[in-house]
Amino acid sequence: MIVGAGRESKKDERRVALDPITVGKLVKSGVSVHIEKDAGLEASFTNADYEKAGARLLDAQMLYNTSDVILRIHTPSLEEISHLKNKVMVVGLLDPFHHLEHLQKFAEKKITAFALELLPRISRAQTMDVLSSQASLAGYKAVILAAATLGKYFPMLTTAAGTMPPAKVLVIGAGVAGLQAIATAKRLGAVVEAYDIRPEVKEQIESLGAKAISIEVSEGVSAQSGYAKVVSQSTQEKIQQMLTNHVQKSDVLITTAFVPGKKAPRIVTEAMVDRMNSGSVIVDLATEQGGNVAYAQPGENILHQGVTILGPLNLPATMPIHASQMFAKNLLTFLNHVVKSGAPVIDFKDEIMASSCVTHEGVIRLPEEKK
Amino acid sequence: MIVGAGRESKKDERRVALDPITVGKLVKSGVSVHIEKDAGLEASFTNADYEKAGARLLDAQMLYNTSDVILRIHTPSLEEISHLKNKVMVVGLLDPFHHLEHLQKFAEKKITAFALELLPRISRAQTMDVLSSQASLAGYKAVILAAATLGKYFPMLTTAAGTMPPAKVLVIGAGVAGLQAIATAKRLGAVVEAYDIRPEVKEQIESLGAKAISIEVSEGVSAQSGYAKVVSQSTQEKIQQMLTNHVQKSDVLITTAFVPGKKAPRIVTEAMVDRMNSGSVIVDLATEQGGNVAYAQPGENILHQGVTILGPLNLPATMPIHASQMFAKNLLTFLNHVVKSGAPVIDFKDEIMASSCVTHEGVIRLPEEKK
Repeated sequence: MIVGAGRESKKDERRVALDPITVGKLVKSGVSVHIEKDAGLEASFTNADYEKAGARLLDAQMLYNTSDVILRIHTPSLEEISHLKNKVMVVGLLDPFHHLEHLQKFAEKKITAFALELLPRISRAQTMDVLSSQASLAGYKAVILAAATLGKYFPMLTTAAGTMPPAKVLVIGAGVAGLQAIATAKRLGAVVEAYDIRPEVKEQIESLGAKAISIEVSEGVSAQSGYAKVVSQSTQEKIQQMLTNHVQKSDVLITTAFVPGKKAPRIVTEAMVDRMNSGSVIVDLATEQGGNVAYAQPGENILHQGVTILGPLNLPATMPIHASQMFAKNLLTFLNHVVKSGAPVIDFKDEIMASSCVTHEGVIRLPEEKK
Repeated sequence: MIVGAGRESKKDERRVALDPITVGKLVKSGVSVHIEKDAGLEASFTNADYEKAGARLLDAQMLYNTSDVILRIHTPSLEEISHLKNKVMVVGLLDPFHHLEHLQKFAEKKITAFALELLPRISRAQTMDVLSSQASLAGYKAVILAAATLGKYFPMLTTAAGTMPPAKVLVIGAGVAGLQAIATAKRLGAVVEAYDIRPEVKEQIESLGAKAISIEVSEGVSAQSGYAKVVSQSTQEKIQQMLTNHVQKSDVLITTAFVPGKKAPRIVTEAMVDRMNSGSVIVDLATEQGGNVAYAQPGENILHQGVTILGPLNLPATMPIHASQMFAKNLLTFLNHVVKSGAPVIDFKDEIMASSCVTHEGVIRLPEEKK
């Protein structure tokens, strides 16, 4: 079996699906690994690093012509798919609902494609969960960006020129990204408050040393997926009202309230931003899903009445070394789950494969509810 | 007595010499404060903030026409000096050796000018020491920039996708900036080593939880000023040789080895940088003084064989809220030292005034050794 990884073509994508450490593990287990020349350069992995780990370096066409399993961060391009052999396997964040033409091509070639964003949120799948490993990087980096932007220290410092109070950080949304943001802001010495609509994460917020903001709502808010549900307009307004004072007094606001593939809730309104102090900093990680914060724009840094509003995209790609290593580790665990005695064994009685497989034996398999 | 502060005209300078908190203290003590309109905007202090603190907002010409004491970050321009009244007092980082024409104008107007970079390094002067308060900001920000650039986490993280080892940070030069860099890197969870040519700072390095690198040298290295002395070529080479392995294995190198107004030692050579791993990050805080690190350029970010080399200028200006507050606090302490019963009392038997005064009663007073 030949496992291959190529260069990612998406704009500003610096990650690569296989890093040299994971290549070494695959080679040791008896798998041949093909890597596209220069695929790792943006992630600081040289061709020599890959060769030392036992990979063969090839140009793109040869890579796609020879591989039995293609590992990716994002979906291969139509051009890349055209070079693939029939019946191979493709694994990555394929974003299937926005790439129907790609799925069609996979199906025509009887390719078995796994979209990792569709992995079930069960404990068995945690070690394969790329959304989780990458969200953690995004939460960390959001705080680093905020610290690089804020005109103040994060920690409290007692100096000969007086005592500087610690920065006040508010994190909204305490999923994987939010919890890592809380942990990072605490490390840097900030005073941290956090809010999540799901009451069951209060304990996790507090275990990181942050204050959990409680807002009572009268409807169910947690979906079976573990993500938050969409709530009614009146609940939304109550939350906004209760958060207004917390937003106003924070130096840094980090929002991470979104569910992949769904529209993000608008939690922070124009009026709430307008009341913030000049010099405050907002990092909205949900701008690609429509944004948690008024004024925030995907990929842009906005200065609004003295408040800097960052809407960074794809933060994991800005930490490509660890991001690639973690992504590759997730992929390796997935592969080990699917491959038996040197070849993929597809079994839809297995929840992991059933949930994430989007094309197999010429059939497109998209879950109905998400179409 | 009227104390005034205007907008700073130096490129990219976002600090202001008086913040609203310090204005409030001055006003409370019976001093009138004049502030140039919009002087604090870049530091997030609005005109309304200053007015609330009791200041009068004026245009530049009126400000300089009316003030008895002018507080500055950097020296006023020749144009601004032309508007000053005779015999007033000016205090700030006047960089006197590079502004002889300005000193001439001060002398012509019998202005008493204090250059705070010439304050003696004695404990009585610590609370006025702007170099120290601002160096601390630079050391903190150097680490934040490194974290924002490095493709890895700083802390060790144990996740479902494996354990990420902590970043290895090497700090060279453990003065105020270096010590704050060490403290910040430790906060973020990095493993930190540090080196300073002065053996007496070893204990301070270790008290911050970092490993102190010891290199024995056979000559005196600490000047009476508390700064490091310039050492011989052979000592320099020995240090470079002993640091080579430490530099090579670090993910982040931060250099802060310089004495204000002197040429910085070249500690990290081309060969040492060339041996660093792809993806490593260097922040050289000494590029304006000639640079501690080969390839580093003032104000530029360079990518050299996969190593990113940052040469940031004036980092305190990128944290203008706290930087201005601390600078103003230093200035206030200096003022309280010089002003008795509502007017400056200049006394050259006082070491603080004698060292820092560069013009008085028409005479330019520059220390001989530094000319």
